[in-house]
Amino acid sequence: MNRKKKTETQASRLRIIPLGGLEQIGMNITAFEYENDIIVVDCGLAFPEDDMFGIDLVIPDVTYLEENIEKVRGFFITHGHEDHIGALPYVLRRINVPIYATRLTMGIIEHKLEEHALLENTARIVVKFGDVITAGAFKVEFIKTNHSIVDAAALAITSPAGVVVHTGDFKVDFTPVYGDAIDLQRFAELGRKGVLALMCDSTNAERPGYTASERTVGRTIDTLFQEHKDTRIIIATFASNVDRVQQIINTACKYGRKVVVEGRSMVNIIRTATQLGCLQVPDNTLIEVDQLRNYPGNQTVIITTGSQGESMAALSRMAESIHRKISISEGDTVIFSSHPIPGNEKAVTNVINKLLLKGADVIFQDVHVSGHPCQEEIKLIYTLVQPRYAIPVHGEYRHLIAQSKIARQLGYDDKDIFLLRSGNVLELDQNGAEITGDVHVGNILVDGLGIGDVGNVVLRDRQHLAEDGIVMVTWAMTDGGRRLLAGPEITSRGFVYIKEAEELMNGADLVAQEAIWECTQKGITDWARMKNAVRDRLSDYFWKKTQRRPMILPMILDAEA
Amino acid sequence: MNRKKKTETQASRLRIIPLGGLEQIGMNITAFEYENDIIVVDCGLAFPEDDMFGIDLVIPDVTYLEENIEKVRGFFITHGHEDHIGALPYVLRRINVPIYATRLTMGIIEHKLEEHALLENTARIVVKFGDVITAGAFKVEFIKTNHSIVDAAALAITSPAGVVVHTGDFKVDFTPVYGDAIDLQRFAELGRKGVLALMCDSTNAERPGYTASERTVGRTIDTLFQEHKDTRIIIATFASNVDRVQQIINTACKYGRKVVVEGRSMVNIIRTATQLGCLQVPDNTLIEVDQLRNYPGNQTVIITTGSQGESMAALSRMAESIHRKISISEGDTVIFSSHPIPGNEKAVTNVINKLLLKGADVIFQDVHVSGHPCQEEIKLIYTLVQPRYAIPVHGEYRHLIAQSKIARQLGYDDKDIFLLRSGNVLELDQNGAEITGDVHVGNILVDGLGIGDVGNVVLRDRQHLAEDGIVMVTWAMTDGGRRLLAGPEITSRGFVYIKEAEELMNGADLVAQEAIWECTQKGITDWARMKNAVRDRLSDYFWKKTQRRPMILPMILDAEA
Repeated sequence: MNRKKKTETQASRLRIIPLGGLEQIGMNITAFEYENDIIVVDCGLAFPEDDMFGIDLVIPDVTYLEENIEKVRGFFITHGHEDHIGALPYVLRRINVPIYATRLTMGIIEHKLEEHALLENTARIVVKFGDVITAGAFKVEFIKTNHSIVDAAALAITSPAGVVVHTGDFKVDFTPVYGDAIDLQRFAELGRKGVLALMCDSTNAERPGYTASERTVGRTIDTLFQEHKDTRIIIATFASNVDRVQQIINTACKYGRKVVVEGRSMVNIIRTATQLGCLQVPDNTLIEVDQLRNYPGNQTVIITTGSQGESMAALSRMAESIHRKISISEGDTVIFSSHPIPGNEKAVTNVINKLLLKGADVIFQDVHVSGHPCQEEIKLIYTLVQPRYAIPVHGEYRHLIAQSKIARQLGYDDKDIFLLRSGNVLELDQNGAEITGDVHVGNILVDGLGIGDVGNVVLRDRQHLAEDGIVMVTWAMTDGGRRLLAGPEITSRGFVYIKEAEELMNGADLVAQEAIWECTQKGITDWARMKNAVRDRLSDYFWKKTQRRPMILPMILDAEA
Repeated sequence: MNRKKKTETQASRLRIIPLGGLEQIGMNITAFEYENDIIVVDCGLAFPEDDMFGIDLVIPDVTYLEENIEKVRGFFITHGHEDHIGALPYVLRRINVPIYATRLTMGIIEHKLEEHALLENTARIVVKFGDVITAGAFKVEFIKTNHSIVDAAALAITSPAGVVVHTGDFKVDFTPVYGDAIDLQRFAELGRKGVLALMCDSTNAERPGYTASERTVGRTIDTLFQEHKDTRIIIATFASNVDRVQQIINTACKYGRKVVVEGRSMVNIIRTATQLGCLQVPDNTLIEVDQLRNYPGNQTVIITTGSQGESMAALSRMAESIHRKISISEGDTVIFSSHPIPGNEKAVTNVINKLLLKGADVIFQDVHVSGHPCQEEIKLIYTLVQPRYAIPVHGEYRHLIAQSKIARQLGYDDKDIFLLRSGNVLELDQNGAEITGDVHVGNILVDGLGIGDVGNVVLRDRQHLAEDGIVMVTWAMTDGGRRLLAGPEITSRGFVYIKEAEELMNGADLVAQEAIWECTQKGITDWARMKNAVRDRLSDYFWKKTQRRPMILPMILDAEA
């Protein structure tokens, strides 16, 4: 970093440092630094890419925060989605500072901390919209927005260098299901007073127009219930979309149906949201899954997880006939109240096909609206906030580019639009803004209990193993490595079906024997060289015979003792 | 099969047996059997599913054809796409019968057969539209259609039991780029005379309206060339879409640009199509990639493969900076003249992001039209052909269901609509139609030189290896398996990063030693039992320590000798 030396009279600049979340979906975490104070906005995880075999989730490397631990004043969380809160249980172990969040967001965080036995040791402050938190040199105001989860907030972050508005994930919903519409007046007020920079959600920046209100989905659901009065209805959606669940429950009540909730995350969120008053469930509406048999199908609704085709989610298990309590029958109506998230299209389509094969009527179009702003909503926020600098956030690079094009349409100069990359240090104040350097960032892979113990070497091995399998060859040497005592024994996994490849494997045996024999003849007693010789010869042999390149792993036993 | 015994006077029924291609995209192959004659329509491959690690392609199991080899009269190919011709080089080795196809289709097939050294031994008959081939009891007429490849045909298959119209993949294009519009008059004529069954493309049956003409893409490309007069243009599309390539070349000529063709399949198809007269390339238009440096960027166009984000295709290599001759520069315009095929969305978006990061302007919306019929086109064909029975084909189950809904809208009874599954035997004639049984069908996996040697066992192993890696443990026993002579040695791949997991692996060593020691103490000399003991103990140990389940592979050396 080339942080400029400041003179006594010169005010400091604000430093904005995204530690993840740019050039990718997920892992949102951004540090705001002013002199001796750092606040962190969000602390999300990312889901593994397709080639990250065996990885459960990905969390940000927060070395920069650890190195500046004495400055860090707290996490300010915009909303309760995994890509904004999911890394907290891991990061808190290293950066134990207070968490500030609104009611439902905190409810979800607390459930997560409880699972990780971190609840007691974590300071948690529930914030109301309009509250202003002082954290060192910063004042952070939580502003009401709309999103596909209740209690989402934008943040107005005031430092001596100016005000930054961070939208979090949001949409503009004039008729939300629960609570107020986005507080556009407050955005306008802040804009009037002067905003240094706007960090605005880019997810839908390629889409023209406006995102429809959540209520439009409620009307669609009502129509579908009316059209399918005679069948059982199974409806899959995102567990965290409390408003969607509310509308389904309302419609179920209207049509006299009992509601079963299926899927662990769905059960958890509904419990939390109900306790906090974000979800109203009339008495005698919910029933247990075991009670389903007491009602005719046309008097029940099952709300379930699995709208993304996740292999272990409840709906997928029903489609695969491995759900222990619910089986899909001819005539069931299954509604996907969701769109496939990019990358999940094929998994979703597989579930749809399986449900159709069971004779279900499957409805998967137009029973969903997005939680992110389209182009006209982005323009609205820019026009209200009138920031000096535009910093598109939340989305892949293509989405950030799309927002920067919108900013240009609104009259922003290229030099006032910052397409940051994770790790960039953006220094800014009223006099200017520039990227002055980079801090260390990275992806930490979580696999089972291991946090960061699977890196590139292990992943490359898994990819290699997945592609062509492995051949192990083992033998025992004696006389100081001069004489073959036993073996070589060869076996393989994931390479060929051994029972039908006897000839191939017998040939491999000869190749290995020959290679070892040649080594002993040449007096090679260095085991690394001997292993390499065997590996190379077997590799050539298998390539010629199969045009595959299995991993070849020689192991030598020392039978000296 | 319960094939009914026929009396002397009773005419036989036609048997339609799909050997693949239903409930899936790809692997289209259908047998039509009448008494002692079988003809086969198409012989396609499928691309591997995401969980088929290491598999190159999937071909149909044609045991049924092999068992009836003396009946098989030929392959009748509708068009030159891989999902209709790709299995030919494999299947021909077992079922060597003549291939009938139109000009470009045959050109592509011949190129493929040449690569597999099968050209000389395969009888090939090039067919013109309107030609009628007699094959045993069958007469097969090739009918002009439109599709995203030139020379696509529908087939009218006449047997004594009646006429079946098989559309192949098609669309209705009133203004095609090359050749005539689909021969709707012939469909009408056949319909007037009476058609027993229609087997119609379902791929787009969920989409309302009509598919736009290929020419509309030409107009879009023209506009884009006009808007990007100052930059180099790189345009990715499907190699086999000769009409698309023609329109790009036309536009390049109009704007005075030289054309470079990149990507092996693109080069091949352009050569074949040009030789056959399906593609007109004006003199002095094509240049070699090495000549690019002799022209300013705004006087060149690069037509390239990689529109689906395929990792080794030319455009992906450019995006990754590993293309040896072309590098993307700031200001390049990259056009995706394609939509992502379901399942490829993420790969495509990764390439787009990488191109944007290099400073290219990337255009990926609305520069493509589909090659398949939407709902109104399907209705048009049904209305012209007026078949007695409807048999939706080509598409996943969801698409077949969608077409069956269209058929119902057109007045068909459920009993006259057949949603076949691969292997079903549909017997039909003027008096009725019914599924009478099943023949053996299946997926054969091709991996390198191996055809069918990778089955479920190997795939499951690859999945297991990909998920959690492998731990090998080897030791040598002596004295008739009673005494441990050397080892155990433990190593792993794809499990943990060994250098940082010393403690874990040392612990594993002790666990293995203990398990072996206990076996020898108990006098267990059965190596299978000993291996199991070690495997179980290590598995428990690793699960407790890491919550992972690596594959554990014990190997014992016999040091008797």
